[in-house]
Amino acid sequence: MAHQKPSIPRGTRDFTPLEMIRRNFIFDTIKQVFMLHGFLPIETPAMENLSTLLGKYGEEGDKLLYRILNSGDFLSGVDESALNAGNSGIVSSMICDRGLRYDLTVPFARFVVQHQHEITFPFKRYQIQPVWRADRPQKGRYREFYQCDADIIGSNALINEAEFVSIIDKVFLKLNVPVLVKLNNRKILAGISEILGEHEKLTGLTVAIDKLDKIGKEKVFEELTNLGFSNEQLAKLQPLLEFRGNTSEKLSFLDVFLQNSETGKKGLEEVRELFNLCELFSLENEIELDISLARGLNYYTGAIIEVKAKNVSIGSVCGGGRYDDLTGIFGLPGVSGVGISFGADRIYDVLDYLKIFPETTGGVVKIMFVNFGKEESAFIIPLMFRLREAGIEAELYPDPAKMKKQMSYANTNAIPWVALVGEEEVKNELITLKNMNSGEQLSLSPDALLKKLTAYYSLKY
Amino acid sequence: MAHQKPSIPRGTRDFTPLEMIRRNFIFDTIKQVFMLHGFLPIETPAMENLSTLLGKYGEEGDKLLYRILNSGDFLSGVDESALNAGNSGIVSSMICDRGLRYDLTVPFARFVVQHQHEITFPFKRYQIQPVWRADRPQKGRYREFYQCDADIIGSNALINEAEFVSIIDKVFLKLNVPVLVKLNNRKILAGISEILGEHEKLTGLTVAIDKLDKIGKEKVFEELTNLGFSNEQLAKLQPLLEFRGNTSEKLSFLDVFLQNSETGKKGLEEVRELFNLCELFSLENEIELDISLARGLNYYTGAIIEVKAKNVSIGSVCGGGRYDDLTGIFGLPGVSGVGISFGADRIYDVLDYLKIFPETTGGVVKIMFVNFGKEESAFIIPLMFRLREAGIEAELYPDPAKMKKQMSYANTNAIPWVALVGEEEVKNELITLKNMNSGEQLSLSPDALLKKLTAYYSLKY
Repeated sequence: MAHQKPSIPRGTRDFTPLEMIRRNFIFDTIKQVFMLHGFLPIETPAMENLSTLLGKYGEEGDKLLYRILNSGDFLSGVDESALNAGNSGIVSSMICDRGLRYDLTVPFARFVVQHQHEITFPFKRYQIQPVWRADRPQKGRYREFYQCDADIIGSNALINEAEFVSIIDKVFLKLNVPVLVKLNNRKILAGISEILGEHEKLTGLTVAIDKLDKIGKEKVFEELTNLGFSNEQLAKLQPLLEFRGNTSEKLSFLDVFLQNSETGKKGLEEVRELFNLCELFSLENEIELDISLARGLNYYTGAIIEVKAKNVSIGSVCGGGRYDDLTGIFGLPGVSGVGISFGADRIYDVLDYLKIFPETTGGVVKIMFVNFGKEESAFIIPLMFRLREAGIEAELYPDPAKMKKQMSYANTNAIPWVALVGEEEVKNELITLKNMNSGEQLSLSPDALLKKLTAYYSLKY
Repeated sequence: MAHQKPSIPRGTRDFTPLEMIRRNFIFDTIKQVFMLHGFLPIETPAMENLSTLLGKYGEEGDKLLYRILNSGDFLSGVDESALNAGNSGIVSSMICDRGLRYDLTVPFARFVVQHQHEITFPFKRYQIQPVWRADRPQKGRYREFYQCDADIIGSNALINEAEFVSIIDKVFLKLNVPVLVKLNNRKILAGISEILGEHEKLTGLTVAIDKLDKIGKEKVFEELTNLGFSNEQLAKLQPLLEFRGNTSEKLSFLDVFLQNSETGKKGLEEVRELFNLCELFSLENEIELDISLARGLNYYTGAIIEVKAKNVSIGSVCGGGRYDDLTGIFGLPGVSGVGISFGADRIYDVLDYLKIFPETTGGVVKIMFVNFGKEESAFIIPLMFRLREAGIEAELYPDPAKMKKQMSYANTNAIPWVALVGEEEVKNELITLKNMNSGEQLSLSPDALLKKLTAYYSLKY
């Protein structure tokens, strides 16, 4: 039989131990901070009914859903004429009832509605699971990737937004990545649109303003003109786009600019309160008001949050905001929520680029015993057992292979300590411990070895 | 628009926070023990190419694979006559290139071959990920479930088998579940078959013997007669099936029974060495030789391992063994491996049945502050910040809701401490701390509160 050359589907990835240890460092950090803030984990199935997923991500999103072929004789009962018409869209809905989840937000909304009688509101959940999108793969974009979401649903209080800013601050502090937290509020954007007398063009306006940094004022104006904004309106907008200042100065400017918009004033009030609440959290990262920040605008109804890593030119590493009717589509209207999502792959790339993964994420095993044979192993195993009991990852090379091969294994696996226990050492009950970084060698009794390593790794002994 | 009643596909599950915390307790325990034994994590994609999966699990397994519909215009290029013939099997292979993984073993074999030049052998990996099977759902059997596998590949040494017994012992010790570890060796089964002069009927013989406990000797003999075993052969087998004794007595009996089978004698030698190695690991759970143990026999070539929880009548909670040609199908022949797999769902059921989930897996949040309003929150937030810095999960109820509602939230979320900081308390800088279990109330300064909780949860402060 010819052997298959093994491969994986395009856009998917295997993760090697080194990558896994580094990814787990990121996931564990995020999890820990979520939990410190009182968020609890949930998980939902990879497969959802297509009726749950379809129509939630726009027409483009529907196309990017992975559909799962019905089991068994899936063609039975399928209309022959539909098959022959060759319309893949129609046929797929006849032969597939389930799809892979596209994000964690829709499954979360479905979860909340389905379990509404078991849940105590406000419900604070976090969820870290893979999602799948049949997108064209490119650098940094995969067909399977993890999302790390936290949401609180069933509370209107702005303290929730502040808690999320605190979560962001703590996560990136722990990851050692300085970030800029940008905040905005949809009501401010709606207010600007109102001031210009263009309620209806809110989306077009914000999409254009969102590009200010990238394409400059002239091009933004060009776009707005195409949307039907008059020169008078653009002249009104100009001072806002040109305004430079810190958050407090921006707020003062907006107080005047938005004085005739009730919605705008409400937005300013919310932003002010959020900044005041953030003060109480002793944040270490910079936060700023950025009125050009829009993100999935049609979705958010209040606060909008986006996080950029400093010193790295990469997209946002976290984002979120408040939404007012996430669960309405599943029959539970009027429940307000706010949430954020960390982009684990982006964060990985940032840490990799800045070369700031902690050294401890290089390997896991702390000590390897060289295998000299059965007699020596009989001496080593009980000692290895004691090391493990003390919490030290330890292994005995399984075969009495050549020394060079065993040392090379320790080297490539980044094992920091190697213990040599040959015939002579067994007789004297001594272990030769080699520090693989410094090359230093020590001769130690079993007790002394245990003491040394537990002290070195700050473990109780 | 009519609201959809939210549901999830049959055979899949949502996990609530309580279930997640308990599941994570199991996963984290297994992970920690894997790592202490020097195993490193990997992950593979949920989707594999169907060419990787098909033909690896038998005809029945192929049917149970979830297939993913090709994206876009999947019907284009599909032969119309095939469509019209209505043969779902043939059509599915034309419109699906990928499927969801069915287990972690085949993806692991694919991973090893694909990354053979990046891997240092022996390669010790663990992998904890969901798998999917289009099986008929029933109690305890799901269409999406997690597997927790560890394997070492590229070493023939029996120390590896002993390491796995040690892993099993430690995992169930930490989970507080007493278990019986059953060991066998395919070579012993082959030896028995050889002694009876029926090399060819090894599978039938072992399948029958495997049922000894369930159906009794008479029925086993009936089955063997149907397979063509003579009365003379059954008479030869009888003393083996009737033999009762401890492992050492069984080994002595087998020394005689298998004296004319080279394969059998080799198996006995391996089992003896494994038991001797296990002695060195200070196991606390019972291990025994069980010659009726077969498990996926056609797959295993040496040791066979199975673990049963004591005091619970439930299937095996862990199993595994040695295989000699896992990666051959992908073009890397002659690499021996040994591995085990923990059944997380079964283990969950055992802990649930025995009611031995640790109390700490009941909730995560240690303290909730009652929300009395903005002034009080401004006092609470910096204190909450300090608690979190010290590693204590803390939250402030987000809205100044009625006391009853807030206390009910704390109750249903099993939060052990509730702090009340009203107007009076803010003035005196005191917190009223209530123990939700005992009802006891204390009045404490912020520093005293911090000291009390960090001491209570043995955290550094």
